[in-house]
Parts: sequence; C-alpha cells; structure tokens
Amino acid sequence: MADSKRTISIGVFDSGIGGLTVVKKIREKIPQAAVVYLGDTARVPYGTKSEETIKRFAREDAAFLIEKGVDLIVVACNTASSVALGYLKREFMNMPIFGVVEPGVKMAAEISEEKHIGIIGTIATIKSHAHKKALENRGITTVFEKACPLFVPLAEEGFTEGKIPELIAEHYLRDIKNRVDTIILGCTHYPILMNVIRNVVGEDIRLIDPAKAVADEVYEFLKSTDSLPEEGRGSLDLYLTDIPPHYHSLLNIFLGFTPDTIEKVDLKEISSC
Amino acid sequence: MADSKRTISIGVFDSGIGGLTVVKKIREKIPQAAVVYLGDTARVPYGTKSEETIKRFAREDAAFLIEKGVDLIVVACNTASSVALGYLKREFMNMPIFGVVEPGVKMAAEISEEKHIGIIGTIATIKSHAHKKALENRGITTVFEKACPLFVPLAEEGFTEGKIPELIAEHYLRDIKNRVDTIILGCTHYPILMNVIRNVVGEDIRLIDPAKAVADEVYEFLKSTDSLPEEGRGSLDLYLTDIPPHYHSLLNIFLGFTPDTIEKVDLKEISSC
Repeated sequence: MADSKRTISIGVFDSGIGGLTVVKKIREKIPQAAVVYLGDTARVPYGTKSEETIKRFAREDAAFLIEKGVDLIVVACNTASSVALGYLKREFMNMPIFGVVEPGVKMAAEISEEKHIGIIGTIATIKSHAHKKALENRGITTVFEKACPLFVPLAEEGFTEGKIPELIAEHYLRDIKNRVDTIILGCTHYPILMNVIRNVVGEDIRLIDPAKAVADEVYEFLKSTDSLPEEGRGSLDLYLTDIPPHYHSLLNIFLGFTPDTIEKVDLKEISSC
Repeated sequence: MADSKRTISIGVFDSGIGGLTVVKKIREKIPQAAVVYLGDTARVPYGTKSEETIKRFAREDAAFLIEKGVDLIVVACNTASSVALGYLKREFMNMPIFGVVEPGVKMAAEISEEKHIGIIGTIATIKSHAHKKALENRGITTVFEKACPLFVPLAEEGFTEGKIPELIAEHYLRDIKNRVDTIILGCTHYPILMNVIRNVVGEDIRLIDPAKAVADEVYEFLKSTDSLPEEGRGSLDLYLTDIPPHYHSLLNIFLGFTPDTIEKVDLKEISSC
C-alpha cells in the first residue's frame, strides 16, 4: 500500500453512473481520498448481458483504473461484483479489489432477525446467485431472489415516485415481501427507488443499501494497512466511456455534487489494442 | 451490384435484437435473399447514448457486415439511422446503405390525411429530429415528437399487455394523441407494443411501422438494378456481440423463427485493432 503521507487513490468502476451512489458514501467516510471513477456509459447496462461479456468488460474497466495509478479498486457494480469479482482478483493479483456483494450480505446477515433474506438485482446478478451463496456461507439458507430488470430504466428516467414505479415494484416484490424481514438492494440504482420500494414492502422490512457497508470496508482496510490519509481535501475525477445526452440529470440523481473533472475515454485505446 | 444469378446478400444491423422485426419483413418480401444480421447486443441500447458514440458503433457494425461480403446494408436501428446514416454513406461510399427513417416518413406522409404527424422513438432519435427534418422536406410542418425511453425495456421484458405498459404509454402519448392523425413507430421495439399503443391512442390514429416500408424499398432497389435473385431458398445468419441470458425469448418475441446460424463475434477484432 501507499505511504499514508500521500493521498490514497481509490478507483471505483461501474457499468454506468449508478456507482456514484457508492462514491458518495466513500467520500463521506474518507473525504481526504482521491477517487477516480470509471463509468462504462458506452456499454451500459451490464445486467442484461452474459457472464463472459461482463467479465471482459470488468477486466477492461479495472485495467483502465490501474493505468490511472489507483491504490485499490471498488467494483461498485453489483452485476460485475456478482459475476466477475473472483476473476478480477485472479487477473490482478497485486491489486486490492472490493466488491459490493460481500459487504451487503454481511450487513443483512447482522441486521436480519429471522434470517429470512431477500435479494433484488439485475438478471445477471440474480442468475449468478452470488448473494445467495454468500449468505449460505454464513449459514443463512432462507433466501429469496428476484430480478427486477425495469428498476434500472425507471431510476434513470427519473420515475422515482407515483403510480407507474409503484405498480412495477408491486409486480416484482409481491411474492418476496411476505417471506423476508430484510431485502438487499443488489443494484446501485435501487436506492434511488427507496421510497417506492418502501411503500410497497411496508415499514417492517429492513432495506439494505450496500454502499455504506462498502465504504466502511474500504475505510477499515486502509486503517488496518496504516494507509488512511491524514489530511487533504480529496478529489473526484470522473471518466466516462460515453457522455450521454442526459448525463447532467443523471449526475444530479446519483451524485448530487459536481466532480473535479469529467473526461470521456475510449477503453479500447488503453487495454485491448 | 452482384449478378442476379447469385444470391444477393443483405446485411442488416441493429443495436440489439429489435432489428429482427425488419429482417422478418425483408424475408417476407425477398425470401430468396441471404440475410446477414448483426446485433450489437454487447453494447445495446444505443438510444440513450451520445451522437459521437452512436456513429462510432454504427461504423464498426457496417464494417463488420462489409467484411462478411454483403451487397447492401440496411440500418434497422432507428437511432443509428437518425444519427449516423449520412456519416455511414460518406464512410462507405461504394456500399448502398438504407435507413429506416426515410421509408417510414414517406409512408406516413402518404397515409396521413391531415398531415399532422407524430414521431415516437428513443432519446437520441428524437433529439436528432431526423424524422421531423425529413417530413419538413416533404412540406409537412405539423410534427410532434416524443421520446419514450421506457418502451424498449418494456418490450424486452415482455411487458406487452396489461396495466403497467398501458399507464406508461398513456404517460408518453397523452399529449400527442390529440394532435395527430398518424404516428410513426420510430424504434424497432415499438411494434411489439402495438396493442398497448393502439389501446391508448384509439382506433382513428394510423400507426406506421417502417419495417415493411424498408423491405419494399430494398426490393425496389434490387429490382431497379436488375439484382433480384430469381430463385433459392434464402438464409438468415445471425451474429451477436453478446449472447445474453434471455436471448431465446427475445428471438421468439422479435423474429418468431430460428435463424440458420447464430454466432457470437467481437467487433474489435475485426474493425478497430
């Protein structure tokens, strides 16, 4: 790890803009860190694509952040964390890499009283059973999984309240809500729909947003390796593979403040050719 | 153009699977042709991305089809047709290239009685104003445009009837439906939602699916260049940049029959490196 005197650089990547919800929590917990974020907005979403393609994309994303000199990598994308984390750790053995599955599962396992836990996520995340396996490793076997593919476009289009998102949430969650006391929001977009999901599942179910748990884990890691930067104002540099027409409103939805820099990059120039 | 004795090879590309609705019409009109289809399923959708990125993707798609030896190219994707058709024609000057915008506009202009025409499509398609400009070139100036970004995920998730798609269609179409007598379905996914859209706009509005108009245009072109193949059973070879987990159900929704071959390809290997 880097010397604690210099600023720690935390690389974060996601299939798109959604992972900025994780960046927000990291900045709250470790405001002095330099965060380098890569959003693969040219190829978003990952959650409807195959395991093979998601692994390739995740490798290219991680390689880009390593080129940028980051000290560790956070895979903010639940789909990439579910499908490709082990693969990334093998490909980049010297780089500390953190996913969002394990921290979310740990938090859910601690909070759930009945140990009946639900997972909602993209098609690829649910198909991987990554959360289910991680819960089973903790002895929790009453697990309900549900893919909610329309939640991502709903969040991105700003349909975060009203009858349309509520009907869709009701459609996805009506079976799961009577069977669990805790639901893991297994996609960075879902916290944007928190109110809608809350209205559908009621007040008694705990909703777990892994973003805070990930930030805590990174903080503990830096502390344990004596790498926590002591001062400095920190920074956020944003790299996007596409600058979509509506990215200003997306930044506003997911981040809520302006990054220090925003730059468009082509991953192929760096890692594939 | 190729000799009419040999089978004509028609290249078709789309951001994903949706363009197979165009293939279906081409096969009905010219069953003896060999169709080579490229679906860029690894990077789908295009409609939420920037003009620059859409142009780059479209160039790579067209280059792939040219490598495969096609005699002409149909850009089945409305987004790529709206944003990149002129660019593609300049890049590949010796290749006949057809888009879906002009045929749809021609059909709408002929059918509309009041010449009050609506266009619905992706964010990028509507932002390009490609249909609007093409209608204005025909002297039609009463044009209403509306982006309907949730229609693509709805169609892909099979939400093709019931309250959820109807509420969403009502949300998008309530303003436009009282102002026009004809609506162009400016996205290959939208015909899948035809019943829902029909229920919302009522029986009096004409809904234009450009797919048939494109097939007619290609047929007329082949006829006029004496290139119509006289016999042969035709074929459909499908190339996809990703084989998504749910592609079987998508093929069923958009095509309804089994292609002769299906192969996964990596565009970068062919056109960028």
